[in-house]
Amino acid sequence: MPETENAVHVFDAAVELTAIDAGRYTGNTHPAYANMVGPFGGVTAATMLRAIQLHPEVFGTPLSLTVNYAAAIQYGEFEVVARPVRTNRSSQHWAIELSQDGSVTTTATAVFGNRRDTWASTELAAPAALPEHETAVTPFPDFVEWGKNYEMRFVEGPIPGLDAAPYPDSISTLWVRDQPARPLDFTSLTALCDVFYPRAFLRRGHALPAGTVTLTIYFHADATEIETQRDRPILATARSNRFGQNYFDQTAHLWSTNDTLLATAHQLVYFKA
Amino acid sequence: MPETENAVHVFDAAVELTAIDAGRYTGNTHPAYANMVGPFGGVTAATMLRAIQLHPEVFGTPLSLTVNYAAAIQYGEFEVVARPVRTNRSSQHWAIELSQDGSVTTTATAVFGNRRDTWASTELAAPAALPEHETAVTPFPDFVEWGKNYEMRFVEGPIPGLDAAPYPDSISTLWVRDQPARPLDFTSLTALCDVFYPRAFLRRGHALPAGTVTLTIYFHADATEIETQRDRPILATARSNRFGQNYFDQTAHLWSTNDTLLATAHQLVYFKA
Repeated sequence: MPETENAVHVFDAAVELTAIDAGRYTGNTHPAYANMVGPFGGVTAATMLRAIQLHPEVFGTPLSLTVNYAAAIQYGEFEVVARPVRTNRSSQHWAIELSQDGSVTTTATAVFGNRRDTWASTELAAPAALPEHETAVTPFPDFVEWGKNYEMRFVEGPIPGLDAAPYPDSISTLWVRDQPARPLDFTSLTALCDVFYPRAFLRRGHALPAGTVTLTIYFHADATEIETQRDRPILATARSNRFGQNYFDQTAHLWSTNDTLLATAHQLVYFKA
Repeated sequence: MPETENAVHVFDAAVELTAIDAGRYTGNTHPAYANMVGPFGGVTAATMLRAIQLHPEVFGTPLSLTVNYAAAIQYGEFEVVARPVRTNRSSQHWAIELSQDGSVTTTATAVFGNRRDTWASTELAAPAALPEHETAVTPFPDFVEWGKNYEMRFVEGPIPGLDAAPYPDSISTLWVRDQPARPLDFTSLTALCDVFYPRAFLRRGHALPAGTVTLTIYFHADATEIETQRDRPILATARSNRFGQNYFDQTAHLWSTNDTLLATAHQLVYFKA
């Protein structure tokens, strides 16, 4: 299918929701974002955010989002309900549930709000990385369907190959953007916060059963900073603090091309090893 | 009032809930944990966890908790509802709401679960710190009521005094335990995850309006590791990544006396400066 200017981007197709009434929607999993069991968690997170963005009472931009992956989503139709729990003068708290056949698979809470200029400082430093155009494209293995929707250029910690040895740390850093290229927005940034393969793969040197249990994103960027990024690759880096007894955590930092910290994201991941 | 062996610890009194029926409780704010506006957020978080722990259907230990501070809690009575959203074979997903006069002030989601032995590794290093007994007790100012319930020994980044200058980074590291001393459990660890004063105070060199919007805790410790800690001080460290436009984030690491990473905690904080 040739790309045309009017074609809907595959990401927008994947997070499309149809309103049944205010805050209640139906959606469908998209085959292009299939993962091992159910859809790519980043697209599920983006769908939860989308349900808020489409709500008639929403105001402001996203400040935080927590998504809990309670059960695998079956391929096919689902329902999403977004409820404004509390609306304050400058912020709004949301609760969101995704369900299939009346059974909840995914819960989320989010905070949206209006921001005003204040004293500002970025204390964290961006990771050292060669520019994007000097870093080779290093795609995921072909059987990872959702990976084909991202152009990934690993600076450090690529996905272990068949002959990989255990890696001494769990750091992956990559330049990444939607494929085909698409201007960044809060929805696509949400999905990008979950673009990392499980850190235990890197430490162990091979794939193993693993899946995100809960994901929390803090959006540091305002609408202008998101817009400024356009469709250029962002610099994304992730690392774990502790692995053990079926769970590990992951902390990720997502940087714009010009060194703006767009988002920080944290998750807890189930694994078997 | 003299301490006796049978006296209820002030922390336990603060997180006490009375069951109305399964998953529905009443509680009361405790004057000993008063903060500037409403109670100390750490005790509110611990109360949300407590509502799950008291539920007849709960199993396993806490894996994660996200608490959203949607509105200030008024001093006095409140209601808490804890609902098991999804129960899997080894994990359980929860939704919790705290309300006053029918209006929700606080929402939370949590994951509990059973853990089994797996490959394990702690990648993060504990911060360098003199032993607890070589670090002076440095309490919060007297008007911070809740601070009196914690023995704090700042290794780095104490709360700015009246003549403080802006600090170059936002790192605070302290030895901390309940006061009077109390054996650590998941509930008190939850409150300790919020024991840090707002990072913007340190960077600016003075207090300013600030309050946690959302807090997420990942519990790395199992029940045995928690028990092993007993009532000794834990080593807690916190830092922010980015401040700006009314919000900053904070990442915290809580270590046992013998260098076990008990929990990592993240929050987004509102501020004006």
